[in-house]
Amino acid sequence: MNYCSHCGAKVSLRTPAGDHLPRHVCDVCHTIHYQNPKLVIGSIPEWEDKILLCRRAIEPRHGFWTLPAGFMENSETTPQAAARETYEEALAEVEIGALYTLFNVPHISQVHLFFRARMLQPNFGAGQESLEVRLFSEAEVPWDEISFASVRRTLQLYFAERKSGIFGFHLDDIRPVPDQLALYHTDNQRNFVE
Amino acid sequence: MNYCSHCGAKVSLRTPAGDHLPRHVCDVCHTIHYQNPKLVIGSIPEWEDKILLCRRAIEPRHGFWTLPAGFMENSETTPQAAARETYEEALAEVEIGALYTLFNVPHISQVHLFFRARMLQPNFGAGQESLEVRLFSEAEVPWDEISFASVRRTLQLYFAERKSGIFGFHLDDIRPVPDQLALYHTDNQRNFVE
Repeated sequence: MNYCSHCGAKVSLRTPAGDHLPRHVCDVCHTIHYQNPKLVIGSIPEWEDKILLCRRAIEPRHGFWTLPAGFMENSETTPQAAARETYEEALAEVEIGALYTLFNVPHISQVHLFFRARMLQPNFGAGQESLEVRLFSEAEVPWDEISFASVRRTLQLYFAERKSGIFGFHLDDIRPVPDQLALYHTDNQRNFVE
Repeated sequence: MNYCSHCGAKVSLRTPAGDHLPRHVCDVCHTIHYQNPKLVIGSIPEWEDKILLCRRAIEPRHGFWTLPAGFMENSETTPQAAARETYEEALAEVEIGALYTLFNVPHISQVHLFFRARMLQPNFGAGQESLEVRLFSEAEVPWDEISFASVRRTLQLYFAERKSGIFGFHLDDIRPVPDQLALYHTDNQRNFVE
């Protein structure tokens, strides 16, 4: 951030009076520009004993498989975001169920939520950000080609718990794998990554 | 948003190619400035059969009682945010437990999370944003002077479930009360409100 989005003057990075962290503050109109973590919301779309995955048509992780998910938009709820992303990426209509996982991803200032979801019909297709969308049984899941750690861990928990028929709610952190740091895309504007 | 925070040129509100919502887009450097919901994170600090509330020293709801809570910061996890806010507002050290409530507050583009929390000692005091901090038994809770709907509903659920000894996880929406709309503070930069 170089300029004030309100008045267009230069901003400085400094800690406002009474605050404890440096912020971008406008030198002219004194607006304080806070930056906060972003929510990434997705679903686990179920049809019979299968779940729906999308092969990504965009970076990062182009060509890898993901649960449908994306940045939450203003003025919506978390289940609405999950249903919207599922429709946009997989052209599938779902009824959103319980929140299943919450992953903190602090090194990229994101929080990822995944909801369980029931497909209303076995209809789906590749949305604009997907190369391909398919239903997978547990044995068919392409574990070596899963896009993100939060998706992989959500799927691992889901298949482990499905055997018992009892699904909990899981909250955990995802930390960077040091030798993969170069892969991390730190632009938090558009695409979600770990 | 009037100016590009990257290059300082004017921005226009328009829907980028491949997108479905209008965004602030820079006319010169073409940066797309996304705006997304903010997370407000708090705790329910417990000491024996009492919980800790803070009387707000800031607007909105100056003078009303709240659970310690505030905007999540970049580079932290949700439990870290809950512990930090509890220390800043109530000078209390807590061990953060399970996530207890998630409230969608779409009319102000916020998501509120409250964690259960165990006070490590019965030590507390008024932080900079609090007039007063006190431990309350259930009978003492000032229900008519609670600051926000998400705090009130979290406390109602907490005391109802404490009787059974079994705490669930609760996710719900908070919608505006029409005749109180004038009270809603829509500046999402600093203070959280419903």
